[in-house]
Amino acid sequence: MNDNSALNIGVCGVGTVGLAVIDILSGGSEMLSERSARSVRVTHVGARREHPGHQYGDALVCRDVMDVARDPSVDVLVELIGGTTVAYDLIKLAISQGKHVVTANKALIAEHGNELVRLAEAAGVQLRFEASVAGGIPIIKVLRESMAANRVSEIAGIINGTGNFILTEMSTKGRAFEDVLAEAQALGYAEADPTFDIDGTDAAHKLVILSSLAFGIPLSIDAPIKQGINEVTPEDLEYASALGYRVKHLGIARLQEAGIEMRVHPTLIPQSKQLASVDGVLNAVMISGDAVGELVLVGPGAGGAATASSVCADIMDIARNESGSGPALGLPAAQLSAQPFIPSGDIVSEWYVRLTAADRPGVMSDITHIFATHDISIESLMQKPPAAGAGEVPIVLLTHEASEAALGAAMSEIIGLEEVQADYALLRVEGFGN
Amino acid sequence: MNDNSALNIGVCGVGTVGLAVIDILSGGSEMLSERSARSVRVTHVGARREHPGHQYGDALVCRDVMDVARDPSVDVLVELIGGTTVAYDLIKLAISQGKHVVTANKALIAEHGNELVRLAEAAGVQLRFEASVAGGIPIIKVLRESMAANRVSEIAGIINGTGNFILTEMSTKGRAFEDVLAEAQALGYAEADPTFDIDGTDAAHKLVILSSLAFGIPLSIDAPIKQGINEVTPEDLEYASALGYRVKHLGIARLQEAGIEMRVHPTLIPQSKQLASVDGVLNAVMISGDAVGELVLVGPGAGGAATASSVCADIMDIARNESGSGPALGLPAAQLSAQPFIPSGDIVSEWYVRLTAADRPGVMSDITHIFATHDISIESLMQKPPAAGAGEVPIVLLTHEASEAALGAAMSEIIGLEEVQADYALLRVEGFGN
Repeated sequence: MNDNSALNIGVCGVGTVGLAVIDILSGGSEMLSERSARSVRVTHVGARREHPGHQYGDALVCRDVMDVARDPSVDVLVELIGGTTVAYDLIKLAISQGKHVVTANKALIAEHGNELVRLAEAAGVQLRFEASVAGGIPIIKVLRESMAANRVSEIAGIINGTGNFILTEMSTKGRAFEDVLAEAQALGYAEADPTFDIDGTDAAHKLVILSSLAFGIPLSIDAPIKQGINEVTPEDLEYASALGYRVKHLGIARLQEAGIEMRVHPTLIPQSKQLASVDGVLNAVMISGDAVGELVLVGPGAGGAATASSVCADIMDIARNESGSGPALGLPAAQLSAQPFIPSGDIVSEWYVRLTAADRPGVMSDITHIFATHDISIESLMQKPPAAGAGEVPIVLLTHEASEAALGAAMSEIIGLEEVQADYALLRVEGFGN
Repeated sequence: MNDNSALNIGVCGVGTVGLAVIDILSGGSEMLSERSARSVRVTHVGARREHPGHQYGDALVCRDVMDVARDPSVDVLVELIGGTTVAYDLIKLAISQGKHVVTANKALIAEHGNELVRLAEAAGVQLRFEASVAGGIPIIKVLRESMAANRVSEIAGIINGTGNFILTEMSTKGRAFEDVLAEAQALGYAEADPTFDIDGTDAAHKLVILSSLAFGIPLSIDAPIKQGINEVTPEDLEYASALGYRVKHLGIARLQEAGIEMRVHPTLIPQSKQLASVDGVLNAVMISGDAVGELVLVGPGAGGAATASSVCADIMDIARNESGSGPALGLPAAQLSAQPFIPSGDIVSEWYVRLTAADRPGVMSDITHIFATHDISIESLMQKPPAAGAGEVPIVLLTHEASEAALGAAMSEIIGLEEVQADYALLRVEGFGN
């Protein structure tokens, strides 16, 4: 069965992405063989359940995915199962059997990547995960290879396609959150359990991977500060728009003098900026490097074929050169070097604040006075006239730069005022990029 | 002098990019060594003239650049001289001496790349040219590697930074062409002889390289249809803006059933599209592939450090793996396969037409009738009121899709009308992309 020049691929997991990978490798086999000067073929498929109607060409179907990792004829194991249990065991087994591994599994790389990269290095195999961040956008390769001569100071991006789709629909069409979420699930963008898309965990995993590549630090799953799109209300989207902003869920990682800040959160971006108009399931990542300046990459952040394009790019890189193009994280695992993370309270940005107060003289003066005592300047302030009969009015304001700690302290005092309700909304504002 | 694990670099040409490459390699030597697990160092500099004040570290300076190609201790020759004479001889010599070559020279690759790639393949060395297209944007790597599993159907981009800078300044600030050109030269964006930036030749060279990578065809320097920014008048920029468009100089290559169309020309793009807001020296390239869909990359298209970032990425790739990551043009030279090019007259697009006619009843009817007889539909038409006392009025119209041949035939008839002046402006309109 082994042909020396052929590269035998075992695909484990036959969801949307797995099927698209099999399609590309089968349908394009002649093209791929020409481009890599060897035959690239799916010889094994690991599928725990039977899926009537699925076509796997003449690949051997294994009900136990571990059989794919054990079969000596498999050269590359493609892990598209997801999660951090079976996938973790499977990849460890494949590495121990001397196989290259390609995965789209951001949770697994963020959580266990340090160990897996070390194991792969020790075994002399490649561990590749282009598809784990930003779907079809080749952001891993660009950071690892194209930016290899740059000191990266900042990454910022829309790196959760589902979340961006939901926010876009809510803000451009005024649709309700639950309604859009259901559509995202029907379209195959969101998982059956969309918790990670909604609470920011998925974006945090991706930011952890990008930060390791950008700053040469170990994968640090607990580092990002995390706020999800579930904290954005329709009225905040409306106010943001009235103020000239769009709300996007961003991952931001910056190298500062005091350390690295890493955060994922809904963010107000001026409408004129490039990232503000990246809508739907599109993702976009901005990288800032000392030599190149700013690069922005935009492309589909979800969807089977787009993600499979990245998986297959990794496979083609292996086919073209099994000895690889450098360490998986840009530096050998042993040389990744931890840096301090800036605590949430110290991270400075501009802020959007929405609160509700009694429509009574003196309230505004009290609120602005409290901000002033915390050294927070107000950039603009908008008070809506109360609805007929209502005694409460929403107050929306934008501040100049302030730390989260300073803002938090001011807000505790403000909601301590008798005229102000305890509920308020707080979103960061960023004006970077083109 | 030779240290087995070190990679010795000879940089030939010490203009803006050459100096920036030397700076990056010297200033970042520790970082680059960590990232490639070997020492990467500039050992030779080829500079035909003395440049007082230039710093080359402890590199050996050669007045005859051929000496750099001949020195057996040099592993990688970096050609940053430009042009197609000395650079051509130098690269051939370096390849024959078994050295890897990195160049930013688009004219040379477009004109002699087929031969040079074959020579490099035969010699078993790498020939790399990331910096030859779109400055700091890693478009060569993305096409060659990240899109390796895609059939590319279209590339379109702003790939001449100087031209885009000039058009941007003219259209946003109403500045005169000559004035902006002089500034572009002072800023180091434009060459002393800016002919190639202005007449579209530079963009055509870059499009030739991108098309070879995208479609697997040999480099075909004569294929692109070419129109430069010198054909855009300030009044066209104003009319375009009034109609909701921006004028950008684009390179476009598309795979059609009848063959490949390749063209560089000023183009009206709807203001809402992403490419329309890529201003100044920024470049942007959109690629459309069957698996990934649309990717857009935006970044600095000119400038020493940004271009040097791409040169150094090529060097780092070589440092990390001298056996390379596949063929220079995505396919081995022998497998590049020519395809027919669609002749200019057959290329279909929407059109912007500006002409001048006597302000007399019946003229508009005559003009629109001629378009109708050529089966060209008019999308919109704008007739400015004549200036006081003037008997002539400018007429601006946008057509639906028509071939250049059909439009040309209609225009000959139209300028044959007694009331219409012989002078007119014709620009293509494209509405693609995000």
